[in-house]
Amino acid sequence: MYFKTIEWKDDHIKILDQRKLPHKVSYIICKDYRSVIKSIKSMAIRGAPAIGVAASMGIALAAKSMKTRDLEIFRRELLEICSKLFQTRPTAINLGWAINRMKKILEDRSIVNIRKIKERLEEEALKIFNEDIEINKRIGEIGKDLIKNGSNILTHCNAGALATAGFGTALGIIYAAWEEKKNIYVYVDETRPLLQGARLTAWELSKHKIPFSIITDNMAGWLMKNKRIDIVLVGADRIARNGDTANKIGTYSLAVLANYHKIPFYVAAPISTFDFQIRSGEDIPIEERSEDEVIFIQGKRIAPKGTNAYNPAFDVTSHKLIDAFITEKGIIRKPFEKYLKTIRFS
Amino acid sequence: MYFKTIEWKDDHIKILDQRKLPHKVSYIICKDYRSVIKSIKSMAIRGAPAIGVAASMGIALAAKSMKTRDLEIFRRELLEICSKLFQTRPTAINLGWAINRMKKILEDRSIVNIRKIKERLEEEALKIFNEDIEINKRIGEIGKDLIKNGSNILTHCNAGALATAGFGTALGIIYAAWEEKKNIYVYVDETRPLLQGARLTAWELSKHKIPFSIITDNMAGWLMKNKRIDIVLVGADRIARNGDTANKIGTYSLAVLANYHKIPFYVAAPISTFDFQIRSGEDIPIEERSEDEVIFIQGKRIAPKGTNAYNPAFDVTSHKLIDAFITEKGIIRKPFEKYLKTIRFS
Repeated sequence: MYFKTIEWKDDHIKILDQRKLPHKVSYIICKDYRSVIKSIKSMAIRGAPAIGVAASMGIALAAKSMKTRDLEIFRRELLEICSKLFQTRPTAINLGWAINRMKKILEDRSIVNIRKIKERLEEEALKIFNEDIEINKRIGEIGKDLIKNGSNILTHCNAGALATAGFGTALGIIYAAWEEKKNIYVYVDETRPLLQGARLTAWELSKHKIPFSIITDNMAGWLMKNKRIDIVLVGADRIARNGDTANKIGTYSLAVLANYHKIPFYVAAPISTFDFQIRSGEDIPIEERSEDEVIFIQGKRIAPKGTNAYNPAFDVTSHKLIDAFITEKGIIRKPFEKYLKTIRFS
Repeated sequence: MYFKTIEWKDDHIKILDQRKLPHKVSYIICKDYRSVIKSIKSMAIRGAPAIGVAASMGIALAAKSMKTRDLEIFRRELLEICSKLFQTRPTAINLGWAINRMKKILEDRSIVNIRKIKERLEEEALKIFNEDIEINKRIGEIGKDLIKNGSNILTHCNAGALATAGFGTALGIIYAAWEEKKNIYVYVDETRPLLQGARLTAWELSKHKIPFSIITDNMAGWLMKNKRIDIVLVGADRIARNGDTANKIGTYSLAVLANYHKIPFYVAAPISTFDFQIRSGEDIPIEERSEDEVIFIQGKRIAPKGTNAYNPAFDVTSHKLIDAFITEKGIIRKPFEKYLKTIRFS
């Protein structure tokens, strides 16, 4: 990799501050879980898998710094911290999924030694981190076959190394296809309001020297109409049991447009992104963020004073509009629910 | 009106510099046709009807300042200026339409007195200007009945007083509905890259005290899905004989999305926007503008250095996706081509 999104440094966590990209590569040194919470809330680190990793490292770090020798106090305080980390952002399931893995250790009554629990928590956080990179590489290997030589790929937001522990989901597939010397071209939705496409995906692609153009989000339909897009590839923040998919706002519009133009629409995500507890996308909580994210761009006001803005951070794409999910366990095709059952229990 | 987009001042033309809005209300004083050309190209003045008015005033101003007493030289030089003004922007037909009205006077061999021609040109420019306001008001009167009380309206770019001699086309309908005390709410696509929605439409609506929110362009589909949009109302830059409509980039995507969600999609435009010479949208020239308009927002770079961007300024919406055209001669419904013939020759 050309950079590290997040790194465990024993007594701190080093987080690449994505708010400053592509202008400046700078890091946040998190010496406690509070600064991890701040980094997730402010979107210094973002992307469903990445915030899961950050939260688990935050818990391990919090555990490490705790002085109490009372096991019950230790557990109770740490569970409270888990709960605080869980509340940072509501939509991405990976956050809850990673925290639950940490909680399982914490709630394991067979370990009664605080030092031992601390060790196990640290191991688990690093395991989540390392597994995520492996899973992404596997998604890349599996997904690259869907990309024909000469393809024009449209992607939205950033589902790259910056959104994960490393490599990326949707971008991971693009990297794998590129490493195989496939001739590809990427169109990158700039992805307002926070411009993760123009800022982050463009930054990643340029580091890999993969040819691309950014477009404004409202151009995608016109490109499809003019046969300039062969495939749409996006990540996901949470996927319901039936395949309904929450992802960055704008994904739903792209899926409708791809459907209208008969262009394949693929979602790349680790299995941990599936929320088997919920039946459909209607049950996915959609985060609404500050309207200032719309009204100001990189600190500059774009609309007159007094203007209101609406700012849902995600939308939900119906499973009907999705052709397949690309996961580390293979490509999941329709009917999704049936297919998923075989994976879930395998 | 609360402001004047363009004004004829006998020895100069006063143009509201829309690039500076909503932050600053400042004017460009055009003392010759060259600065009119510059204002149109740089989009200090934009909007199909408005640039038509600007071009006609530019010709009248050029005529006025010409010193020659030789009628043939006068005609030849002025026709060259017409041609230069015509080349400023390729997509909006109103530009060519307004210039052709001026050329008709210039080519009228029955007028042999230069002073008289100058007078007639000035009269014609003012006529185009005044007619445009009247036409817009008529469009507003006709269109307002399509807006039910309690409607949530989505609009794109700016088809308001700023895009015309005054009042506006799509926004003119909204103003007329509002003046009738209809309870309406407007969602305004910010309209990247140049943010005419967030900067200009928001500015106009706030002056009228009409309640609105801006959204990023990629939110429209999600709002439709959640039944927050009852009607989509946009302007047009050129309409082919079959109803295919060129308008600001993003309009096509909105039309596909509206179609998918069974939401009525209306285009408001004067009859002069119809190009009866061309059969379909395939023949409409689409202006591509500098990629810097995408890469920089209000002077600030958003993507890494070396990033390419694609920047078509317009797209074409198939007539199949349009429910009706709202014109000063009435509402044009399907089949458009048949309907238009009756209007064209009436």
